[in-house]
Amino acid sequence: MKPILLHEDRLFPADEATRSVARSLYQTVKDLPIISPHGHTDPRWFAYDDNFGNATELFILPDHYVFRMLYSQGISLESLGIRRWDGGATEGDPKKIWQIFADHYYLFAGTPSRMWLDTVFKNVFGLSDMLCSENAMDYYEFITAELSKEAYKPRALMDRFNIELIATTEGALDTLEHHRAMQGSGWEKRVITTFRPDDIVDASREDFAANVALLGEITGENTTDWAGYLAAIRQRRQTFREHGATATDHGHPTALTADLSKAECQALFDKCLSGNASAAEQELFRGQMLTELAGMSIEDGMVMQIHPGAFRNHNNDVFTKFGRDKGADIPMQTEYVNALKPLLDKYGNDPRLNIILFTLDETVYSRELAPLAGHYPCLKLGPAWWFHDSPEGMLRYRHQVTETAGLFNTVGFNDDTRAFLSIPARHDVARRIDCRFLANMVVEHRISEDEAASLIKQLSYDLAKKAYKLGQE
Amino acid sequence: MKPILLHEDRLFPADEATRSVARSLYQTVKDLPIISPHGHTDPRWFAYDDNFGNATELFILPDHYVFRMLYSQGISLESLGIRRWDGGATEGDPKKIWQIFADHYYLFAGTPSRMWLDTVFKNVFGLSDMLCSENAMDYYEFITAELSKEAYKPRALMDRFNIELIATTEGALDTLEHHRAMQGSGWEKRVITTFRPDDIVDASREDFAANVALLGEITGENTTDWAGYLAAIRQRRQTFREHGATATDHGHPTALTADLSKAECQALFDKCLSGNASAAEQELFRGQMLTELAGMSIEDGMVMQIHPGAFRNHNNDVFTKFGRDKGADIPMQTEYVNALKPLLDKYGNDPRLNIILFTLDETVYSRELAPLAGHYPCLKLGPAWWFHDSPEGMLRYRHQVTETAGLFNTVGFNDDTRAFLSIPARHDVARRIDCRFLANMVVEHRISEDEAASLIKQLSYDLAKKAYKLGQE
Amino acid sequence: MKPILLHEDRLFPADEATRSVARSLYQTVKDLPIISPHGHTDPRWFAYDDNFGNATELFILPDHYVFRMLYSQGISLESLGIRRWDGGATEGDPKKIWQIFADHYYLFAGTPSRMWLDTVFKNVFGLSDMLCSENAMDYYEFITAELSKEAYKPRALMDRFNIELIATTEGALDTLEHHRAMQGSGWEKRVITTFRPDDIVDASREDFAANVALLGEITGENTTDWAGYLAAIRQRRQTFREHGATATDHGHPTALTADLSKAECQALFDKCLSGNASAAEQELFRGQMLTELAGMSIEDGMVMQIHPGAFRNHNNDVFTKFGRDKGADIPMQTEYVNALKPLLDKYGNDPRLNIILFTLDETVYSRELAPLAGHYPCLKLGPAWWFHDSPEGMLRYRHQVTETAGLFNTVGFNDDTRAFLSIPARHDVARRIDCRFLANMVVEHRISEDEAASLIKQLSYDLAKKAYKLGQE
Repeated sequence: MKPILLHEDRLFPADEATRSVARSLYQTVKDLPIISPHGHTDPRWFAYDDNFGNATELFILPDHYVFRMLYSQGISLESLGIRRWDGGATEGDPKKIWQIFADHYYLFAGTPSRMWLDTVFKNVFGLSDMLCSENAMDYYEFITAELSKEAYKPRALMDRFNIELIATTEGALDTLEHHRAMQGSGWEKRVITTFRPDDIVDASREDFAANVALLGEITGENTTDWAGYLAAIRQRRQTFREHGATATDHGHPTALTADLSKAECQALFDKCLSGNASAAEQELFRGQMLTELAGMSIEDGMVMQIHPGAFRNHNNDVFTKFGRDKGADIPMQTEYVNALKPLLDKYGNDPRLNIILFTLDETVYSRELAPLAGHYPCLKLGPAWWFHDSPEGMLRYRHQVTETAGLFNTVGFNDDTRAFLSIPARHDVARRIDCRFLANMVVEHRISEDEAASLIKQLSYDLAKKAYKLGQE
Repeated sequence: MKPILLHEDRLFPADEATRSVARSLYQTVKDLPIISPHGHTDPRWFAYDDNFGNATELFILPDHYVFRMLYSQGISLESLGIRRWDGGATEGDPKKIWQIFADHYYLFAGTPSRMWLDTVFKNVFGLSDMLCSENAMDYYEFITAELSKEAYKPRALMDRFNIELIATTEGALDTLEHHRAMQGSGWEKRVITTFRPDDIVDASREDFAANVALLGEITGENTTDWAGYLAAIRQRRQTFREHGATATDHGHPTALTADLSKAECQALFDKCLSGNASAAEQELFRGQMLTELAGMSIEDGMVMQIHPGAFRNHNNDVFTKFGRDKGADIPMQTEYVNALKPLLDKYGNDPRLNIILFTLDETVYSRELAPLAGHYPCLKLGPAWWFHDSPEGMLRYRHQVTETAGLFNTVGFNDDTRAFLSIPARHDVARRIDCRFLANMVVEHRISEDEAASLIKQLSYDLAKKAYKLGQE
Repeated sequence: MKPILLHEDRLFPADEATRSVARSLYQTVKDLPIISPHGHTDPRWFAYDDNFGNATELFILPDHYVFRMLYSQGISLESLGIRRWDGGATEGDPKKIWQIFADHYYLFAGTPSRMWLDTVFKNVFGLSDMLCSENAMDYYEFITAELSKEAYKPRALMDRFNIELIATTEGALDTLEHHRAMQGSGWEKRVITTFRPDDIVDASREDFAANVALLGEITGENTTDWAGYLAAIRQRRQTFREHGATATDHGHPTALTADLSKAECQALFDKCLSGNASAAEQELFRGQMLTELAGMSIEDGMVMQIHPGAFRNHNNDVFTKFGRDKGADIPMQTEYVNALKPLLDKYGNDPRLNIILFTLDETVYSRELAPLAGHYPCLKLGPAWWFHDSPEGMLRYRHQVTETAGLFNTVGFNDDTRAFLSIPARHDVARRIDCRFLANMVVEHRISEDEAASLIKQLSYDLAKKAYKLGQE
């Protein structure tokens, strides 16, 4: 068996002079509280503070990074216990699943998943041997036993992880019951929601009309009418605000925006509700809604996050059998300069608007996003996202964005995860890479070590609080 | 207050062995004369040699790199004294503007503007503390006082900066009066013009027909006729040649070229003049004109520069209030392989043709531009441009271009600036980065140190003179 | 005269700690046998073992990397002795051609060609001075004399180069006579063919209908009928299998695939045969054929290689005078996510299917290819290809692919060359760069040195054998 690598200098560059600066910078931020302003943890955990289940339930079943790699090497999703939509049989023994995972842990060499997992195994559970076939069952049993203890309950981990604040993400129709359950406990200040209205905005979904009808029921508005539909959304936003939301999130296929007349909006909305809209009309409706939602953000102060560019559920067979979020989302080329223009023409110079742009298409960093964020007062750049939330991805992001947008048009780190236990590991990778990036600038005499010390605190903590308006209320 | 960083090893890589080679190479080129074959300085300066105005007029008002960053952080262009087209009020006190700039100088950490400005402040003015809120007024007054001295007149600075030759850029309708004023003084050999006919070629401009009419007046040709229009352009080119021009420049939205019949050309030209051409027809006309202008380059020997890919004046509101060149130009994806084919089919193998290609879309470096320049005898690659005229941008350029195009299909550095005082700083950055790139190849045993010494002189001086035909006439 | 650089540490990174790890890793793989699973050597060489001709015939005339660079600098293809299709005169004296090459050898500084050539000159021929004008004739005569010796016959070089296996590439109509000539000699196990059916699949070729007719003659099938055409292809695949083929190769302009009904296929095939198909229909036909060929791969187990994205013969004039493969192929933007979907919808989860994807568009590494290969069990990624088969290109590939696809979804190295003597040099570059990449991960504590040692053997040898099914039959 091999030891888990978790060298104190991991991810710092080889050059000793640079590494030394990176190490010093890291010392100043490694223990800062974690701000997690965008992610997908379950509010239920923090509301009721129940223990997590076994190792397999925690580390494999919900982690599409993990099972996509295993699937790519010919391991069936059934054998990994991924639940089938169609009721087909899947492996039910969590130990067998864990063994498969351990047998193939070598596949993750060089991936961020490997570093996140090793960090959790060592830093959260105190394990010291790297996971492999031989120790798989010891691992499973040890982790599962630990998970049943007080110290591994969600709220205890929140404290242990030094997470000052975490934002979950809920759909527009969500009851927010788990957030409501936290009210008065103090935890509602540490666990806030985010308003994600894709379900009532994306007319390509089979359940769009039903969702809009439900939106009407929930709000008492006439959501068959364009004005009523907008009023209902405003009402939902207000409810989300009451549960701490400072931001909205929009996961559209593209960054298209539009600026139609009211009459055009009503007609397009009618067509979308009727189920007869073409794909292009559905896309136009999503684009119009981004502009409408920007207008609402100006009214209520919520920060917009736009996450475009994924071809969702690319694998038909996997989608049919297993449903969404099964590691089969693939990035597509994404254009921003023309796509965002209608929204920017309407609201781009309004000092009350705050939009954070993300991308899965790294080619736009230097070509489109940095120039846009380096000009428009309403635009900031979210961190390297999803497939690019990785050491190399983050380095490419900083190297390609900074010279044009500077550092103050970025917003710190998002872990964007449902893997709660990995949150400290993910923030740690981001802090290390930012230390490395700044150390490199110091050693090349582009910024001073003093400046770097000030900047690393911004990147690790301050910018996230400011961009997501988390400090001032 | 902090000192200005301007370490003698700045921009060299951290690794000591590589840095040492870079340092040695740099010693051999740092004092070479500057060839500035493409830029936007004002010929008036060199013709009449008047002193520049105050610090704000020199460093803030004309520098879109500076005010785009400030604007992106919520500082109004009005407060920066940018003149409004519509006559709206703007800040008139240059000291107040300078103070805002100084207060926000930290925003430029990690950007090329910061390095250029620091270099000017320290090397040109002898300042040693970094600009900040506290020393803003001292800075302003010191710089403004210095600017009124003999030693800061344009011609004195040309000598001090060791600029052997500088090319300005004038529109096709320009009177060239300032260049004419230099004739006989000897300065006309150091300050030459460049022919940029966008104003008479781009039919999407509101003033296109008026410009073509004025072209007719200036030349005595019938510019309502296709043949007369071309003859008029030839005549203007000849006039520019007489004022030193060895190159033309073309700032089109795309790299599209076309090769239409004469009858099609006349019909398209008529439609463009009538104001009824569609956007696609205007684009086709620009494309046809690139091919026509290539033909003229074969006749008169002028080198063509093609600078495509900017979405100009993306911010409607800023354009309406403040006009062009206000930091709101955003790069777009740009295609060359299909776009250039009509021109290349017609003239691509003519040994008399020289075209220098630029891009704002770094994805084409390795995919399109290096393969094109590594095959077609008429094509060379201009240096990293605009947003990519930066340490990281230049490194990406060299790393992505060299293996396919080699170094001899590139043309040295362009500063492309109207910020005259920053010219030495910009060439210095380029020389340092090229030293670094070559030093890296030396240390990796890909070229010898002797070769690197020969190559760095090419990159710093020889290639620019050769590519722009500046030495042999 | 300068010595040839061929430092034992070439291509290793400057940092001494990293270099030391790279050096150690390299020691473990530098002498591993070469697996060359995809290339364009001539089977004739290995079948009859005749000596090669002179230095010019061997190093200049067939190497488009060499003459494209010379041509780009204004040297005519005629003067390089490239044979004209139209019978026009070209230089016939190999010594004059060699002298031109030597005079311009400096142009290759920083290119992979320079490293490959220097390696051959020094390691294969024992030359120690770098090629230049002065030693050109000595070089020519020495090399040409050596080539006439026993030790320089193809089979002797195969042994000397330690090439365990090499795959050639033949068109679907090839007689495979040279492979047949090897049968029974033992050499048929070391020299295998690859099935490349572009000539009978690409309806945009002038000879498409004639080729399909010839296919019918060869196989006895009625190839005017869709079913007969497919049966004929199956038959040819079987014949190729009998000459060792384990893989097919497809050099389409794009990665488009399609999944039409049989009736649509017959109609489209008819139209393509008639010569009346539009460019879009020809493209659709190629796309349909990729899907058909994937189906056949499932049947017979051959691995599909898809090499899309070249604009072939971009230079009209060069094509007209000199024909194909004259250094005028230029990469184009290439899309995979939508293009491959029809094929993947049909066969993407079949465990019997193996597809290796290549690209000339590096922007898809992190955005499309790594996510696709990191999910679909049938997809693996071929190495950096053609213009990107270079130190920088390979580093970009590893850095952009590994975090999402891991290392086990890649397939080792392809030399893809017709330049037989350069094969060891090319594999050596690949091994060095992979050592460097892994060493960097070791020094950054992302993998252990033990893991790196295991991985470098995979990347240098094992993965190629496994991906191309070369070991188990």
